[in-house]
Amino acid sequence: MPDYRRLRVALLGAGAVGSQVAALLRLHSAELADRASASLELAGIAVRNLDAPRETDLPKELFTTDAESLIVGADIVIELMGGIEPARTYLLQAINSGADVVTANKALLATHGPEIFDAADQVGAQVYYEAAAAGAIPIIRPLRDSLAGDRVQRIMGIVNGTTNYILDRMDTEGAEFADVLADAQRLGYAEADPTADVEGYDAAQKAAILASLAFHTSVPLESVHREGITGIDKAMMDAARHAGLVIKLLAVCERLRDGDSESISVRVYPALIDRTHPLASVHGANNAVFVQAEAAGNLMFYGAGAGGVQTASAVLGDVVSAARRHIAGGVGVGESTRANLAVVPIGQVTTRYQITLEVDDQPGVLATVAGILSEGRVSIATVEQTVAGEPVPGGGTAPQTPENTARLVIGTHKAKEQDLSETVSRLAGSGVVERVVSVLRVEGE
Amino acid sequence: MPDYRRLRVALLGAGAVGSQVAALLRLHSAELADRASASLELAGIAVRNLDAPRETDLPKELFTTDAESLIVGADIVIELMGGIEPARTYLLQAINSGADVVTANKALLATHGPEIFDAADQVGAQVYYEAAAAGAIPIIRPLRDSLAGDRVQRIMGIVNGTTNYILDRMDTEGAEFADVLADAQRLGYAEADPTADVEGYDAAQKAAILASLAFHTSVPLESVHREGITGIDKAMMDAARHAGLVIKLLAVCERLRDGDSESISVRVYPALIDRTHPLASVHGANNAVFVQAEAAGNLMFYGAGAGGVQTASAVLGDVVSAARRHIAGGVGVGESTRANLAVVPIGQVTTRYQITLEVDDQPGVLATVAGILSEGRVSIATVEQTVAGEPVPGGGTAPQTPENTARLVIGTHKAKEQDLSETVSRLAGSGVVERVVSVLRVEGE
Repeated sequence: MPDYRRLRVALLGAGAVGSQVAALLRLHSAELADRASASLELAGIAVRNLDAPRETDLPKELFTTDAESLIVGADIVIELMGGIEPARTYLLQAINSGADVVTANKALLATHGPEIFDAADQVGAQVYYEAAAAGAIPIIRPLRDSLAGDRVQRIMGIVNGTTNYILDRMDTEGAEFADVLADAQRLGYAEADPTADVEGYDAAQKAAILASLAFHTSVPLESVHREGITGIDKAMMDAARHAGLVIKLLAVCERLRDGDSESISVRVYPALIDRTHPLASVHGANNAVFVQAEAAGNLMFYGAGAGGVQTASAVLGDVVSAARRHIAGGVGVGESTRANLAVVPIGQVTTRYQITLEVDDQPGVLATVAGILSEGRVSIATVEQTVAGEPVPGGGTAPQTPENTARLVIGTHKAKEQDLSETVSRLAGSGVVERVVSVLRVEGE
Repeated sequence: MPDYRRLRVALLGAGAVGSQVAALLRLHSAELADRASASLELAGIAVRNLDAPRETDLPKELFTTDAESLIVGADIVIELMGGIEPARTYLLQAINSGADVVTANKALLATHGPEIFDAADQVGAQVYYEAAAAGAIPIIRPLRDSLAGDRVQRIMGIVNGTTNYILDRMDTEGAEFADVLADAQRLGYAEADPTADVEGYDAAQKAAILASLAFHTSVPLESVHREGITGIDKAMMDAARHAGLVIKLLAVCERLRDGDSESISVRVYPALIDRTHPLASVHGANNAVFVQAEAAGNLMFYGAGAGGVQTASAVLGDVVSAARRHIAGGVGVGESTRANLAVVPIGQVTTRYQITLEVDDQPGVLATVAGILSEGRVSIATVEQTVAGEPVPGGGTAPQTPENTARLVIGTHKAKEQDLSETVSRLAGSGVVERVVSVLRVEGE
C-alpha cells in the first residue's frame, strides 16, 4: 500500500448504522485508502453505554464514553447518534476543532441546519449528509451539485420506508391500517412507537432538507405542512385502486410562481397518484425521489431508504469525500441558500382533489353540491355517483352506504387549499351531505 | 448582487448542447452566481464556422474561430465540440493553462481518459463530465462520490436513447426494426448514419466510463465487448413478450470473483430481461442506470439520456461545481483507478441464455440436443417445444416453422460464453438442428 497520509476518523454512535460503518471501515480499509488517497484510521467509537450489546464484532478498546476527547484531534467526525442533543454540541465542537463532519441526523439538520452550516462556513469545514434524506439513495449530491445549474420545479418523494411498506400492503392485500402496522412492528419495519413515521414527522424532516437544497433556501421545519397516514383506511385504498390510483405518503417540494415573484411550498401528506406514475411502482420499504427540473426534465432516484448497512454505504461515501477534500486542501463549499424564497402556508397551495361524499339519494342533490363547489371557486373535473352494490368502472361494486344515500366522488381541477377546505365545510353543513367520507389531494404531472 | 469574484468561462462548440449552455448561462447568470459564489462570465464561444445557423439568439460578438486564444486566461473551459481532435488538444491546452474543464465528450473520455486525467492531476485541475455517461441523469457523482465507500457489484444501464426508442416501439407496436429506424430518423431520434447508436458504439463508450468509475480501474474502450441491435427482429421481440421478457440494449459492468482474485467484465449487447425488472419499464428515448452495490443494495437512476437542454443541465451543474472549487481553493481530486482490475474477454463471462432452434420433428431429437448441451457444460433450466400454429403459454400461437420441424426454446442456467458458443456450433452441425433461430443472453438479478 502506498504511504498515504493518515486521517483520524471519530465515530459517534454504534447503533444499526454506526456499527456497520465501523465494520466496513475496517474491512475495506486498503480499498478505501486507495480511493481516498488517505489512510482512514478509526480512532474510536463514542457510545453512551460500554456494555450495550453490539451487532458486529468490534474490538472493545475502540469504544469510549468520552466523546469530547475522541473529537479532539479527529480529521473527520461521523455523527450517528441521532436526536438533537448531545449530537448538536458534538458536531459544533468537531467543526470548531477543524474536522469535517459526516452526519445522517435528519432531525438535527432539519431543526439546526443553518447553525451547523454557518459554523462550518466560519472555519472552512464541510458538512456531509448524504444519508440524511433518503438513506442509501444518492440524492444530496445530485441536488446540490449535478442540478446546481438547473431550476428544480418540483420534487415528489417517497422518503419514509415504514409508511410505504404499510400503504403498499394495504394496497396489494386489501388489509386494514392497524393490522399492517402491527405486522410491520413485529417484522421490525415499524418502531414500537410508530408516531415519527406514521404521522409524517420523519418525512417532514427529509422534505425540509430536500427543499433547502433544491431551492437554495433555508426551509424551517415549522414551515413544512405535515399530515400522516393514520386516517387512511381500506375503503379509501379500494376506491383509489378502482379508479386506477394509489395512495402514497408524499413529500412534495414545489416552486410557485405568481407573476415575477416566486415562493415555495413544502408539504407531506398522503396523496393519490396515477398508477402509471413512476412513483406508483415503488413497493415495500423502498424509497424514491422524483425530480422535475426546468432543463433536465423528469428524473427519478430509487433505492433503499433505510437499513443499517444500506445507510452505512451513504455515510462511507461521505467519509471518502471528506478525506479527498482534506487531501486536496481548500475550504469547504458552504450551502447555497441565497435564493431566500418564502415558504407559503398550506392554505395558499393549489392541487387537485378527490372529494368523496355520502349524499341524500334524491333529485337536485348534485345541483346543490355543484353550486356550493362553484361558489367556493372549486372547479369540478369529474363526478361519479354510485349506488351501493352496483358495479363501478374499474371493476368491483360500489361500497355500502346507509339507506337512502348515494355516494358522490368528485374530482376537482386545481383549487386553492383554503378555498377547498372552506367549501368542504359548507358541503358538510349543507343539509344534503350526510357525511364527508374523504378528501384527498391528487398529485402528479 | 454581492461583489462576487469573476470567473471567465470559455465555451467550445455551439451545437444542440452548447447553444443551450450559452443561453442558460446568460439567462440565469444572477442565480448561478449566488449558487457558485462567483460571477460566471461567458468570455466567448469557439466555433468552426461563424456563419452557421444557431438555435438560440446569442450576441454575434461572443463567437470566434480562435479557440486557442479563448482558452488562454479562461478559468473554466467547457468542451462540447465532440469527436477526438481538436477537442483533445484544446482540453489539454486548457488544463495546462490552469483551467478546470467540463466536457460531455464520451468518445474522447473513453479513448483518451487516462491522458486527460493525468494531465489534470499534474497541475491540480479537475475534469468534470456528468453529461458524458447518461445525459441529464446524475450518475457520475453518485458513482464517483456517493458510492465511493461501497463496492459496486454490477451496473446494468440503458444508456442509449435511440436504441431504446427503437426496441420499445418494436415491443409495443410489433413493428420491424427497419421501419422503426426509418421513423426514428424522420423524427430526429436517430442520425442519418445510425451506426454509432444501433451498433452499440455509443453505449460502449458510456460503459467504459461507468465501469472505470464503478470499479476504480481504467477500462480501455477496446476491452468493452460490443454488439448492436440490428440482428433483433419482430419474431424475437414477439417471442420475448410471450415469455414475459423484453429485449433491451444493455451496458453491463460486472465485478467477477474467482477465489480471492477479482476481475471485471464490461459488455454491451441486446439482452432479455424480465418484464418486472425496473429497467423493463424504461420507455421511449429515456435512459436508466441500475446499480447493485454490496452495502447500498439496488439503486436506479432514471431520466433523459440525451437532448440539448437536458444535457445542458448536467453541463451547467459541472460549471457551478468547477466555480465552487475555484472559490474554495485546493487542488482537484483525481480519478480513483488504483484497483487496476483486469477486464476479462467475453468468452470468460457467464450469463444465462435463451437458445431458439428449429429442429427435426421426430422422436429422440430432444435427447440429442440435451446431450450436446450437457457435453458442452451448458445446463438446461427450461425447455419448451412448440409446433407451428399451436397455442403457447403467455398467449398467441407458436410461430410458423418449415414442414416436419418443431421449435425448441431452451433457457439455460449460467454458462460460460465460450462453452455456450462452442455448444451452439455443435448444435448447428448436429444434423437434427435445421436452424439456430436466435441466441440471446438473459440478464437480471
